[in-house]
Amino acid sequence: MTERDKGPRVRQIPSGDNRERLVCPDCNYVAYENPKIVVGVVATWEDKLLMCRRAIEPRLGYWTLPAGFLEMGETPEEGAAREAWEEARAELEIIDLLAVYSLRHISQLQLFFRARLSSPNVSAGPESEEVGLFTFDDLPDTELAFPSVHWAIQHFQDVRGMSSFAPFRNPAGHTGKMHRGR
Amino acid sequence: MTERDKGPRVRQIPSGDNRERLVCPDCNYVAYENPKIVVGVVATWEDKLLMCRRAIEPRLGYWTLPAGFLEMGETPEEGAAREAWEEARAELEIIDLLAVYSLRHISQLQLFFRARLSSPNVSAGPESEEVGLFTFDDLPDTELAFPSVHWAIQHFQDVRGMSSFAPFRNPAGHTGKMHRGR
Repeated sequence: MTERDKGPRVRQIPSGDNRERLVCPDCNYVAYENPKIVVGVVATWEDKLLMCRRAIEPRLGYWTLPAGFLEMGETPEEGAAREAWEEARAELEIIDLLAVYSLRHISQLQLFFRARLSSPNVSAGPESEEVGLFTFDDLPDTELAFPSVHWAIQHFQDVRGMSSFAPFRNPAGHTGKMHRGR
Repeated sequence: MTERDKGPRVRQIPSGDNRERLVCPDCNYVAYENPKIVVGVVATWEDKLLMCRRAIEPRLGYWTLPAGFLEMGETPEEGAAREAWEEARAELEIIDLLAVYSLRHISQLQLFFRARLSSPNVSAGPESEEVGLFTFDDLPDTELAFPSVHWAIQHFQDVRGMSSFAPFRNPAGHTGKMHRGR
């Protein structure tokens, strides 16, 4: 949280609460911060995986899976399908819940769904520089955008052909924190 | 959202965004609203289920499962265990993810975990009028607090003895909306 000179900017415990919140000293508005939900897809056409190269920060230029923040009033499946459309103009059918990752250092809960593309016609939306369909042994030859993108791709391969399984969680000992220098 | 006369109170689309947000006309602070994550437990001691009678609105006086909003920096399992402590002074071990319910009309994603109580010593925390351990054929003889409490208890019984399963979602056709008059 950056320092502000207006709006909610003072950390204090509101009356009746038991945690510090960000409060506006001018009007006493309390900006409750809650963990956010990210929804994404591991979407395939035949044996190929849909990936997007990011046109926005963070990690501009790196390849990722279609994913973004769940919006108000959406089911997770709807949000994941919307993100696939916004980032890759992809139409798809959600199959099932692949993984639930907890990134506590940034207070994110990430839900990745398996999905089947309705057609191979995909193209870059405004947040992508390019999009592509890649076979799993020929994924983009660069570092991926985030640790959880690696996890989801690996976990997807771990359950190919399976129709019912407990969704994956973070790989043991992994928090999803980026290493320095990346 | 109630009308306010100060703080974020004007709905408009911030520049670079594509949805209406609540903005403060005095300082231009944007109060982004995101769906919230509720974490709870279906926790047992031997063949008995832990339940709490609510001491707070909504649904004051009705029986429920320990559950509440995930806080910043918590994993879902930590949040669920914290809620069980706050509401029922229960110590427990989280087992696995039972269900992921989407309550889109209130923009909540609810995660319920199966859990094993470390002891039958439970007592009401500040948000509970009383707590109790009930056999499944002798649950509280009153209406329960929320539809998803019903769902979680039923789903728990559906997978007794199973160690790996895809977590349940909303029962078909159910949104979790409360019926009028309840």
